[in-house]
Amino acid sequence: MTYQLHYWPTIQGRGEFVRLALEAAGADYVDVARGTKAQGGGGAALGQRLGDARNSRPPFAPPFLVDGDVVVGQTAAILLYLGPRLQLAGAGEADGLWTHQLQLTVADAVAEAHDTHHPLSVGIYYEDQREAAAARAKAFRDERIPKFLGWFEDVLQRNPAGDTHLVGDALTYADLSLFQLVAGLRYAFPKAAARALADTPAVVKLHDNVARRQRVHAYLQSPRRIAFNEEGIFRRYPELDG
Amino acid sequence: MTYQLHYWPTIQGRGEFVRLALEAAGADYVDVARGTKAQGGGGAALGQRLGDARNSRPPFAPPFLVDGDVVVGQTAAILLYLGPRLQLAGAGEADGLWTHQLQLTVADAVAEAHDTHHPLSVGIYYEDQREAAAARAKAFRDERIPKFLGWFEDVLQRNPAGDTHLVGDALTYADLSLFQLVAGLRYAFPKAAARALADTPAVVKLHDNVARRQRVHAYLQSPRRIAFNEEGIFRRYPELDG
Repeated sequence: MTYQLHYWPTIQGRGEFVRLALEAAGADYVDVARGTKAQGGGGAALGQRLGDARNSRPPFAPPFLVDGDVVVGQTAAILLYLGPRLQLAGAGEADGLWTHQLQLTVADAVAEAHDTHHPLSVGIYYEDQREAAAARAKAFRDERIPKFLGWFEDVLQRNPAGDTHLVGDALTYADLSLFQLVAGLRYAFPKAAARALADTPAVVKLHDNVARRQRVHAYLQSPRRIAFNEEGIFRRYPELDG
Repeated sequence: MTYQLHYWPTIQGRGEFVRLALEAAGADYVDVARGTKAQGGGGAALGQRLGDARNSRPPFAPPFLVDGDVVVGQTAAILLYLGPRLQLAGAGEADGLWTHQLQLTVADAVAEAHDTHHPLSVGIYYEDQREAAAARAKAFRDERIPKFLGWFEDVLQRNPAGDTHLVGDALTYADLSLFQLVAGLRYAFPKAAARALADTPAVVKLHDNVARRQRVHAYLQSPRRIAFNEEGIFRRYPELDG
Protein backbone atom coordinates (compact mmCIF):
# COMPACT_ATOMS: atom_id res chain seq x y z
CA MET A 1 0.00 0.00 0.00
CA THR A 2 1.36 3.41 -0.98
CA TYR A 3 1.24 5.96 1.83
CA GLN A 4 -0.12 9.37 0.87
CA LEU A 5 1.47 12.30 2.65
CA HIS A 6 -0.51 15.53 2.48
CA TYR A 7 1.49 18.65 3.23
CA TRP A 8 2.34 22.07 1.83
CA PRO A 9 4.39 21.52 -1.31
CA THR A 10 6.94 24.33 -0.98
CA ILE A 11 8.29 23.99 2.56
CA GLN A 12 9.92 21.41 4.80
CA GLY A 13 7.81 22.44 7.77
CA ARG A 14 6.29 19.81 10.02
CA GLY A 15 5.79 17.50 7.06
CA GLU A 16 9.54 17.03 6.85
CA PHE A 17 9.55 14.84 9.97
CA VAL A 18 7.19 12.47 8.18
CA ARG A 19 9.10 12.65 4.89
CA LEU A 20 12.32 11.74 6.68
CA ALA A 21 10.75 8.68 8.32
CA LEU A 22 9.27 7.47 5.03
CA GLU A 23 12.52 8.09 3.15
CA ALA A 24 14.81 6.53 5.76
CA ALA A 25 12.66 3.40 5.76
CA GLY A 26 12.51 3.22 1.97
CA ALA A 27 8.70 3.28 2.22
CA ASP A 28 6.46 3.56 -0.82
CA TYR A 29 4.80 6.98 -0.59
CA VAL A 30 3.47 9.91 -2.57
CA ASP A 31 3.88 13.52 -1.49
CA VAL A 32 0.46 14.37 -2.85
CA ALA A 33 0.52 18.16 -3.08
CA ARG A 34 3.84 18.02 -4.94
CA GLY A 35 2.41 15.77 -7.64
CA THR A 36 0.77 17.01 -10.81
CA LYS A 37 -2.94 17.56 -11.16
CA ALA A 38 -3.01 14.77 -13.74
CA GLN A 39 -1.65 12.40 -11.06
CA GLY A 40 -4.41 13.48 -8.69
CA GLY A 41 -1.97 15.71 -6.86
CA GLY A 42 -1.32 19.42 -6.46
CA GLY A 43 -2.36 21.94 -3.84
CA ALA A 44 -6.04 21.53 -4.62
CA ALA A 45 -5.92 17.83 -3.72
CA LEU A 46 -4.61 18.73 -0.26
CA GLY A 47 -7.36 21.27 0.30
CA GLN A 48 -9.99 18.85 -0.91
CA ARG A 49 -8.90 16.12 1.47
CA LEU A 50 -8.58 18.58 4.35
CA GLY A 51 -12.09 19.88 3.78
CA ASP A 52 -13.65 16.47 3.08
CA ALA A 53 -16.90 16.57 5.04
CA ARG A 54 -17.34 12.81 4.70
CA ASN A 55 -14.30 12.18 6.87
CA SER A 56 -15.66 11.58 10.36
CA ARG A 57 -12.17 12.01 11.80
CA PRO A 58 -10.91 15.15 10.02
CA PRO A 59 -7.35 16.41 10.45
CA PHE A 60 -7.00 19.82 12.11
CA ALA A 61 -4.23 20.89 9.73
CA PRO A 62 -1.52 19.47 7.45
CA PRO A 63 0.45 17.30 7.62
CA PHE A 64 -1.80 14.29 7.51
CA LEU A 65 -1.21 10.78 6.25
CA VAL A 66 -3.62 8.63 4.32
CA ASP A 67 -3.11 4.87 4.46
CA GLY A 68 -6.09 3.21 2.82
CA ASP A 69 -9.04 4.04 5.05
CA VAL A 70 -6.89 5.50 7.78
CA VAL A 71 -6.40 9.29 7.90
CA VAL A 72 -4.02 10.50 10.63
CA GLY A 73 -3.20 14.10 11.45
CA GLN A 74 -0.74 15.69 13.88
CA THR A 75 2.92 15.07 13.09
CA ALA A 76 3.65 13.16 16.29
CA ALA A 77 0.55 10.97 15.85
CA ILE A 78 1.55 10.20 12.25
CA LEU A 79 4.94 9.06 13.48
CA LEU A 80 3.31 7.07 16.28
CA TYR A 81 1.33 5.28 13.58
CA LEU A 82 4.24 4.80 11.19
CA GLY A 83 6.85 3.96 13.83
CA PRO A 84 6.22 0.23 14.25
CA ARG A 85 5.21 -0.16 10.57
CA LEU A 86 8.53 1.27 9.37
CA GLN A 87 10.53 -0.32 12.20
CA LEU A 88 11.49 3.10 13.48
CA ALA A 89 10.16 2.91 17.04
CA GLY A 90 12.51 0.55 18.87
CA ALA A 91 11.30 -2.69 20.39
CA GLY A 92 8.12 -3.07 22.41
CA GLU A 93 5.85 -0.65 24.28
CA ALA A 94 8.51 0.95 26.46
CA ASP A 95 10.74 1.89 23.51
CA GLY A 96 7.75 3.07 21.49
CA LEU A 97 6.61 5.32 24.31
CA TRP A 98 10.10 6.71 24.86
CA THR A 99 10.54 7.36 21.13
CA HIS A 100 7.24 9.24 21.18
CA GLN A 101 8.22 11.24 24.24
CA LEU A 102 11.40 12.32 22.44
CA GLN A 103 9.34 13.29 19.39
CA LEU A 104 6.98 15.41 21.48
CA THR A 105 9.97 17.26 22.90
CA VAL A 106 11.33 17.87 19.38
CA ALA A 107 7.85 19.15 18.51
CA ASP A 108 7.95 21.59 21.43
CA ALA A 109 11.32 22.91 20.25
CA VAL A 110 9.99 23.24 16.69
CA ALA A 111 6.93 25.20 17.85
CA GLU A 112 9.18 27.55 19.79
CA ALA A 113 11.50 27.97 16.79
CA HIS A 114 8.47 28.94 14.72
CA ASP A 115 7.34 31.49 17.27
CA THR A 116 10.67 33.33 17.11
CA HIS A 117 9.52 34.88 13.82
CA HIS A 118 5.80 34.90 14.64
CA PRO A 119 5.55 35.65 18.37
CA LEU A 120 2.33 37.67 18.10
CA SER A 121 0.23 36.00 15.42
CA VAL A 122 0.53 33.74 12.39
CA GLY A 123 -1.97 36.09 10.77
CA ILE A 124 0.41 39.03 10.40
CA TYR A 125 3.71 39.30 8.53
CA TYR A 126 7.06 38.87 10.20
CA GLU A 127 7.91 42.41 9.10
CA ASP A 128 5.05 43.68 11.26
CA GLN A 129 6.21 41.90 14.43
CA ARG A 130 9.98 42.33 14.20
CA GLU A 131 10.45 43.96 17.57
CA ALA A 132 8.63 41.17 19.43
CA ALA A 133 10.45 38.61 17.27
CA ALA A 134 13.81 40.04 18.33
CA ALA A 135 12.91 39.61 22.00
CA ARG A 136 11.48 36.13 21.55
CA ALA A 137 14.47 35.01 19.46
CA LYS A 138 16.92 36.25 22.10
CA ALA A 139 15.24 34.13 24.78
CA PHE A 140 15.12 31.17 22.41
CA ARG A 141 18.83 31.48 21.58
CA ASP A 142 20.03 32.13 25.12
CA GLU A 143 17.83 29.77 27.11
CA ARG A 144 15.78 27.39 25.04
CA ILE A 145 18.21 26.09 22.39
CA PRO A 146 20.80 25.14 25.04
CA LYS A 147 18.09 23.58 27.23
CA PHE A 148 16.61 21.44 24.46
CA LEU A 149 19.95 20.35 22.97
CA GLY A 150 21.41 19.79 26.44
CA TRP A 151 18.56 17.45 27.28
CA PHE A 152 19.05 15.44 24.09
CA GLU A 153 22.78 15.26 24.85
CA ASP A 154 21.92 13.91 28.29
CA VAL A 155 19.60 11.33 26.77
CA LEU A 156 22.33 10.17 24.38
CA GLN A 157 24.99 10.08 27.11
CA ARG A 158 22.74 8.04 29.38
CA ASN A 159 21.58 5.54 26.78
CA PRO A 160 22.79 2.18 28.16
CA ALA A 161 23.17 0.93 24.57
CA GLY A 162 25.60 3.75 23.72
CA ASP A 163 25.39 7.31 22.49
CA THR A 164 24.88 6.59 18.80
CA HIS A 165 21.09 6.52 18.96
CA LEU A 166 18.45 8.07 21.22
CA VAL A 167 16.59 4.78 21.73
CA GLY A 168 18.52 1.54 22.11
CA ASP A 169 21.03 0.74 19.38
CA ALA A 170 18.96 1.23 16.23
CA LEU A 171 17.52 4.10 14.22
CA THR A 172 14.14 5.51 15.31
CA TYR A 173 12.06 8.40 14.07
CA ALA A 174 13.31 10.33 17.12
CA ASP A 175 16.86 10.22 15.68
CA LEU A 176 15.59 11.47 12.33
CA SER A 177 13.64 14.26 14.02
CA LEU A 178 16.61 15.34 16.12
CA PHE A 179 18.69 15.42 12.91
CA GLN A 180 16.06 17.73 11.39
CA LEU A 181 15.91 19.94 14.47
CA VAL A 182 19.70 20.39 14.40
CA ALA A 183 19.66 21.08 10.64
CA GLY A 184 16.88 23.63 11.11
CA LEU A 185 18.55 25.40 14.02
CA ARG A 186 21.81 25.59 12.06
CA TYR A 187 19.98 27.13 9.13
CA ALA A 188 17.96 29.66 11.11
CA PHE A 189 20.39 30.49 13.90
CA PRO A 190 23.89 29.60 12.62
CA LYS A 191 25.73 31.44 15.38
CA ALA A 192 23.51 30.42 18.30
CA ALA A 193 23.28 26.82 17.11
CA ALA A 194 27.07 26.56 16.76
CA ARG A 195 27.50 27.84 20.32
CA ALA A 196 25.01 25.36 21.78
CA LEU A 197 26.25 22.44 19.68
CA ALA A 198 29.80 22.99 20.91
CA ASP A 199 28.54 21.64 24.24
CA THR A 200 26.60 18.71 22.78
CA PRO A 201 29.05 16.51 20.87
CA ALA A 202 26.82 13.43 20.87
CA VAL A 203 23.97 15.43 19.29
CA VAL A 204 26.36 16.62 16.54
CA LYS A 205 27.56 13.06 15.97
CA LEU A 206 23.97 11.80 15.75
CA HIS A 207 23.15 14.50 13.19
CA ASP A 208 26.16 13.52 11.08
CA ASN A 209 25.46 9.79 11.33
CA VAL A 210 21.86 10.26 10.23
CA ALA A 211 22.90 12.45 7.30
CA ARG A 212 25.35 9.75 6.17
CA ARG A 213 22.83 6.91 6.13
CA GLN A 214 22.45 5.69 2.58
CA ARG A 215 18.75 6.39 2.09
CA VAL A 216 18.82 9.66 4.03
CA HIS A 217 21.88 10.83 2.10
CA ALA A 218 20.23 9.97 -1.22
CA TYR A 219 17.09 11.83 -0.13
CA LEU A 220 18.98 14.93 0.99
CA GLN A 221 20.75 15.10 -2.39
CA SER A 222 17.52 14.62 -4.34
CA PRO A 223 15.00 17.21 -5.54
CA ARG A 224 12.53 15.62 -3.10
CA ARG A 225 14.31 17.48 -0.29
CA ILE A 226 12.97 21.02 -0.39
CA ALA A 227 15.58 23.59 0.60
CA PHE A 228 15.09 25.56 3.81
CA ASN A 229 13.42 28.86 2.98
CA GLU A 230 11.74 31.84 4.59
CA GLU A 231 8.22 30.43 4.27
CA GLY A 232 8.91 27.49 6.56
CA ILE A 233 9.39 27.02 10.28
CA PHE A 234 13.15 27.56 10.34
CA ARG A 235 13.84 30.92 8.72
CA ARG A 236 17.15 32.67 8.33
CA TYR A 237 16.57 36.23 9.43
CA PRO A 238 20.11 37.31 10.37
CA GLU A 239 18.77 39.89 12.81
CA LEU A 240 17.25 37.07 14.89
CA ASP A 241 20.58 35.27 15.28
CA GLY A 242 23.53 36.50 17.32
CA MET B 1 0.19 -0.38 41.89
CA THR B 2 -0.19 3.27 42.91
CA TYR B 3 0.61 5.74 40.14
CA GLN B 4 2.82 8.63 41.15
CA LEU B 5 2.10 11.91 39.41
CA HIS B 6 4.89 14.47 39.62
CA TYR B 7 3.82 18.03 38.94
CA TRP B 8 3.93 21.53 40.36
CA PRO B 9 1.79 21.50 43.52
CA THR B 10 0.10 24.90 43.24
CA ILE B 11 -1.27 25.00 39.69
CA GLN B 12 -3.54 22.98 37.42
CA GLY B 13 -1.23 23.47 34.45
CA ARG B 14 -0.47 20.55 32.15
CA GLY B 15 -0.62 18.16 35.09
CA GLU B 16 -4.37 18.71 35.29
CA PHE B 17 -4.95 16.67 32.14
CA VAL B 18 -3.34 13.72 33.89
CA ARG B 19 -5.14 14.36 37.19
CA LEU B 20 -8.48 14.38 35.38
CA ALA B 21 -7.79 11.05 33.70
CA LEU B 22 -6.70 9.42 36.97
CA GLU B 23 -9.67 10.87 38.86
CA ALA B 24 -12.28 10.03 36.21
CA ALA B 25 -11.07 6.43 36.17
CA GLY B 26 -10.97 6.16 39.97
CA ALA B 27 -7.29 5.20 39.72
CA ASP B 28 -5.07 4.82 42.73
CA TYR B 29 -2.55 7.66 42.56
CA VAL B 30 -0.47 10.07 44.59
CA ASP B 31 0.09 13.68 43.57
CA VAL B 32 3.62 13.53 44.93
CA ALA B 33 4.59 17.19 45.24
CA ARG B 34 1.37 17.93 47.12
CA GLY B 35 2.13 15.35 49.78
CA THR B 36 4.05 16.08 52.96
CA LYS B 37 7.76 15.59 53.33
CA ALA B 38 7.06 12.84 55.85
CA GLN B 39 5.10 10.97 53.16
CA GLY B 40 8.06 11.29 50.78
CA GLY B 41 6.34 14.15 48.99
CA GLY B 42 6.71 17.88 48.63
CA GLY B 43 8.40 20.06 46.06
CA ALA B 44 11.84 18.66 46.84
CA ALA B 45 10.71 15.15 45.88
CA LEU B 46 9.71 16.41 42.44
CA GLY B 47 13.05 18.12 41.90
CA GLN B 48 14.92 15.05 43.07
CA ARG B 49 13.13 12.76 40.63
CA LEU B 50 13.51 15.26 37.81
CA GLY B 51 17.23 15.54 38.41
CA ASP B 52 17.80 11.84 39.04
CA ALA B 53 20.97 11.06 37.07
CA ARG B 54 20.35 7.31 37.37
CA ASN B 55 17.27 7.58 35.17
CA SER B 56 18.42 6.70 31.67
CA ARG B 57 15.18 8.09 30.23
CA PRO B 58 14.82 11.40 32.05
CA PRO B 59 11.73 13.60 31.65
CA PHE B 60 12.33 17.00 30.05
CA ALA B 61 9.95 18.74 32.45
CA PRO B 62 6.95 18.06 34.71
CA PRO B 63 4.45 16.52 34.53
CA PHE B 64 5.81 13.01 34.59
CA LEU B 65 4.30 9.79 35.79
CA VAL B 66 6.02 7.01 37.69
CA ASP B 67 4.51 3.55 37.48
CA GLY B 68 6.91 1.11 39.11
CA ASP B 69 9.99 1.12 36.87
CA VAL B 70 8.32 3.17 34.16
CA VAL B 71 8.87 6.94 34.11
CA VAL B 72 6.93 8.81 31.41
CA GLY B 73 7.10 12.52 30.66
CA GLN B 74 5.19 14.76 28.22
CA THR B 75 1.49 15.12 29.02
CA ALA B 76 0.29 13.53 25.80
CA ALA B 77 2.68 10.59 26.19
CA ILE B 78 1.50 10.06 29.77
CA LEU B 79 -2.09 9.90 28.54
CA LEU B 80 -1.05 7.60 25.70
CA TYR B 81 0.37 5.29 28.37
CA LEU B 82 -2.57 5.58 30.76
CA GLY B 83 -5.32 5.53 28.12
CA PRO B 84 -5.71 1.77 27.64
CA ARG B 85 -4.85 1.06 31.29
CA LEU B 86 -7.65 3.32 32.52
CA GLN B 87 -10.00 2.38 29.68
CA LEU B 88 -10.00 5.95 28.45
CA ALA B 89 -8.77 5.46 24.88
CA GLY B 90 -11.66 3.85 23.03
CA ALA B 91 -11.37 0.42 21.45
CA GLY B 92 -8.41 -0.75 19.40
CA GLU B 93 -5.56 0.99 17.57
CA ALA B 94 -7.68 3.30 15.43
CA ASP B 95 -9.58 4.75 18.40
CA GLY B 96 -6.40 5.02 20.43
CA LEU B 97 -4.67 6.94 17.66
CA TRP B 98 -7.65 9.24 17.13
CA THR B 99 -7.91 9.92 20.87
CA HIS B 100 -4.23 10.83 20.85
CA GLN B 101 -4.63 13.08 17.81
CA LEU B 102 -7.39 14.95 19.64
CA GLN B 103 -5.16 15.26 22.70
CA LEU B 104 -2.29 16.70 20.64
CA THR B 105 -4.67 19.32 19.27
CA VAL B 106 -5.82 20.23 22.79
CA ALA B 107 -2.12 20.49 23.68
CA ASP B 108 -1.54 22.91 20.79
CA ALA B 109 -4.43 25.07 22.00
CA VAL B 110 -3.07 24.97 25.57
CA ALA B 111 0.41 26.03 24.44
CA GLU B 112 -1.11 28.95 22.54
CA ALA B 113 -3.23 29.94 25.55
CA HIS B 114 -0.06 30.01 27.62
CA ASP B 115 1.73 32.19 25.10
CA THR B 116 -0.97 34.88 25.30
CA HIS B 117 0.55 36.00 28.61
CA HIS B 118 4.14 35.03 27.78
CA PRO B 119 4.61 35.74 24.07
CA LEU B 120 8.25 36.81 24.36
CA SER B 121 9.80 34.59 27.02
CA VAL B 122 8.89 32.46 30.00
CA GLY B 123 11.93 34.00 31.66
CA ILE B 124 10.44 37.46 32.09
CA TYR B 125 7.34 38.60 33.98
CA TYR B 126 3.99 39.12 32.29
CA GLU B 127 4.14 42.72 33.44
CA ASP B 128 7.24 43.20 31.30
CA GLN B 129 5.65 41.86 28.11
CA ARG B 130 2.14 43.29 28.35
CA GLU B 131 2.13 45.04 25.00
CA ALA B 132 3.12 41.92 23.11
CA ALA B 133 0.67 39.91 25.23
CA ALA B 134 -2.18 42.20 24.18
CA ALA B 135 -1.42 41.60 20.50
CA ARG B 136 -0.98 37.87 20.89
CA ALA B 137 -4.17 37.56 22.97
CA LYS B 138 -6.19 39.45 20.37
CA ALA B 139 -5.14 37.01 17.64
CA PHE B 140 -5.84 34.09 19.96
CA ARG B 141 -9.32 35.39 20.80
CA ASP B 142 -10.30 36.40 17.28
CA GLU B 143 -8.81 33.54 15.24
CA ARG B 144 -7.50 30.68 17.28
CA ILE B 145 -10.20 30.05 19.91
CA PRO B 146 -12.95 29.88 17.24
CA LYS B 147 -10.77 27.69 15.02
CA PHE B 148 -9.93 25.18 17.75
CA LEU B 149 -13.44 25.01 19.24
CA GLY B 150 -14.99 24.93 15.78
CA TRP B 151 -12.89 21.91 14.88
CA PHE B 152 -13.91 20.07 18.05
CA GLU B 153 -17.54 20.91 17.30
CA ASP B 154 -17.07 19.44 13.82
CA VAL B 155 -15.56 16.30 15.31
CA LEU B 156 -18.50 15.89 17.69
CA GLN B 157 -21.07 16.55 14.95
CA ARG B 158 -19.45 14.02 12.63
CA ASN B 159 -19.01 11.25 15.21
CA PRO B 160 -21.09 8.37 13.78
CA ALA B 161 -21.81 7.22 17.34
CA GLY B 162 -23.39 10.58 18.24
CA ASP B 163 -22.20 13.93 19.54
CA THR B 164 -21.93 13.03 23.22
CA HIS B 165 -18.29 11.94 23.04
CA LEU B 166 -15.35 12.74 20.82
CA VAL B 167 -14.44 9.08 20.24
CA GLY B 168 -17.17 6.49 19.81
CA ASP B 169 -19.80 6.37 22.54
CA ALA B 170 -17.68 6.23 25.68
CA LEU B 171 -15.53 8.57 27.73
CA THR B 172 -11.89 9.02 26.67
CA TYR B 173 -9.12 11.22 27.95
CA ALA B 174 -9.79 13.46 24.93
CA ASP B 175 -13.23 14.30 26.37
CA LEU B 176 -11.67 15.10 29.74
CA SER B 177 -9.04 17.28 28.09
CA LEU B 178 -11.60 19.17 26.02
CA PHE B 179 -13.58 19.76 29.23
CA GLN B 180 -10.42 21.23 30.77
CA LEU B 181 -9.68 23.37 27.73
CA VAL B 182 -13.20 24.84 27.83
CA ALA B 183 -12.98 25.44 31.59
CA GLY B 184 -9.62 27.14 31.15
CA LEU B 185 -10.73 29.34 28.28
CA ARG B 186 -13.82 30.37 30.23
CA TYR B 187 -11.64 31.30 33.18
CA ALA B 188 -9.01 33.22 31.25
CA PHE B 189 -11.12 34.74 28.48
CA PRO B 190 -14.72 34.80 29.76
CA LYS B 191 -16.00 37.12 27.02
CA ALA B 192 -14.13 35.60 24.08
CA ALA B 193 -14.89 32.05 25.22
CA ALA B 194 -18.61 32.83 25.58
CA ARG B 195 -18.66 34.22 22.03
CA ALA B 196 -16.94 31.18 20.53
CA LEU B 197 -18.93 28.68 22.58
CA ALA B 198 -22.20 30.20 21.38
CA ASP B 199 -21.34 28.61 18.02
CA THR B 200 -20.27 25.23 19.42
CA PRO B 201 -23.25 23.75 21.31
CA ALA B 202 -21.93 20.19 21.27
CA VAL B 203 -18.67 21.31 22.86
CA VAL B 204 -20.63 23.06 25.63
CA LYS B 205 -22.76 19.96 26.15
CA LEU B 206 -19.65 17.77 26.35
CA HIS B 207 -18.12 20.09 28.94
CA ASP B 208 -21.30 19.94 31.05
CA ASN B 209 -21.63 16.17 30.73
CA VAL B 210 -18.04 15.62 31.82
CA ALA B 211 -18.47 17.95 34.81
CA ARG B 212 -21.55 16.00 35.90
CA ARG B 213 -19.90 12.60 35.87
CA GLN B 214 -19.87 11.24 39.40
CA ARG B 215 -16.12 10.91 39.90
CA VAL B 216 -15.29 14.10 38.02
CA HIS B 217 -17.93 16.03 39.97
CA ALA B 218 -16.58 14.70 43.26
CA TYR B 219 -13.05 15.66 42.21
CA LEU B 220 -14.02 19.17 41.15
CA GLN B 221 -15.68 19.75 44.54
CA SER B 222 -12.72 18.38 46.47
CA PRO B 223 -9.59 20.17 47.69
CA ARG B 224 -7.65 18.01 45.24
CA ARG B 225 -8.85 20.33 42.45
CA ILE B 226 -6.59 23.37 42.61
CA ALA B 227 -8.41 26.57 41.66
CA PHE B 228 -7.39 28.39 38.49
CA ASN B 229 -4.88 31.10 39.36
CA GLU B 230 -2.44 33.53 37.80
CA GLU B 231 0.55 31.20 38.11
CA GLY B 232 -0.91 28.59 35.77
CA ILE B 233 -1.48 28.34 32.03
CA PHE B 234 -4.94 29.89 31.99
CA ARG B 235 -4.70 33.29 33.67
CA ARG B 236 -7.42 35.86 34.08
CA TYR B 237 -5.89 39.13 33.04
CA PRO B 238 -8.99 41.16 32.11
CA GLU B 239 -7.00 43.32 29.71
CA LEU B 240 -6.29 40.23 27.59
CA ASP B 241 -9.99 39.40 27.17
CA GLY B 242 -12.49 41.40 25.19
